[in-house]
Amino acid sequence: MPVPPQRPDPVRPADDDARALARQLLADATFCALAVVEPGTGHPFASRIALGRDASGLPLSLVSGLALHTRALRAAPACCLLVGEPGPKGDPLTHPRLSLRAVAEFVDPASPDHDDLRRSWLARNPKATVYASLPDFSFVRFRPTSAALNGGFARAFSLTDQDLSG
Amino acid sequence: MPVPPQRPDPVRPADDDARALARQLLADATFCALAVVEPGTGHPFASRIALGRDASGLPLSLVSGLALHTRALRAAPACCLLVGEPGPKGDPLTHPRLSLRAVAEFVDPASPDHDDLRRSWLARNPKATVYASLPDFSFVRFRPTSAALNGGFARAFSLTDQDLSG
Repeated sequence: MPVPPQRPDPVRPADDDARALARQLLADATFCALAVVEPGTGHPFASRIALGRDASGLPLSLVSGLALHTRALRAAPACCLLVGEPGPKGDPLTHPRLSLRAVAEFVDPASPDHDDLRRSWLARNPKATVYASLPDFSFVRFRPTSAALNGGFARAFSLTDQDLSG
Repeated sequence: MPVPPQRPDPVRPADDDARALARQLLADATFCALAVVEPGTGHPFASRIALGRDASGLPLSLVSGLALHTRALRAAPACCLLVGEPGPKGDPLTHPRLSLRAVAEFVDPASPDHDDLRRSWLARNPKATVYASLPDFSFVRFRPTSAALNGGFARAFSLTDQDLSG
């Protein structure tokens, strides 16, 4: 089947509003969808993870070594976070969302900032106390490389890592 | 950094409750996160799409040819849908969700069932009328191959395509 004819590509470079919206979506998110590539098969895989931020504002999660996404990230750290959840009302596809391409960096439990990360995470997620100390659980930072912001129909922006920081 | 020691793998084969929950999550979903592999880079990518079902119950979406996920699916149809949205209350990580591995099949606009799909889609999504007729928009079916169901901490199930049908 041939690919149908195309409208002009509506994706624009980020402007100040797009940058502000992308940063707000990241700042507000407490969870997100994570896309990874499964080791062995190369199949894409999507799952849900908790989301927070480290002291420098980088997206951060606490993941189980038993989860497929964790094994995938250890084998291939390129990933994508989808942040910006629709509310219970209205058309979910008009709600802005950010597809954030990133590289996952596992935090060594022996690193100097690990205890601070843990304390800060548990302060925001007290229920995580029951599993945060299990030996397979790890903190993982997501270092953004680029992003696609969808602010609703025909409002699409491309963002660089510079657009996302600061 | 060495991989930390592991607890026993908690993922179990599906039972009747898991099968029923997975089917319910699929039946209720009006949108989902879609994971694809980007053409060229092989980078995983996550975005949000609308979700419905065709007459046989297969997950169905209406996608724009300008969207990155559509170009990705045309190049490599293996994908993964994350369905099961947390409500506004409670811990989002305890809300059940299904990671559905699937193969995307674009519906030829000349196929006999295209008009029925379109009519049924627009009856559920009347706002889609404004763009459903644009020439780059296509219906795409998702043929499930397997799934991972997460019903909350330590409630993980592996499902086959047989578990998901019927």
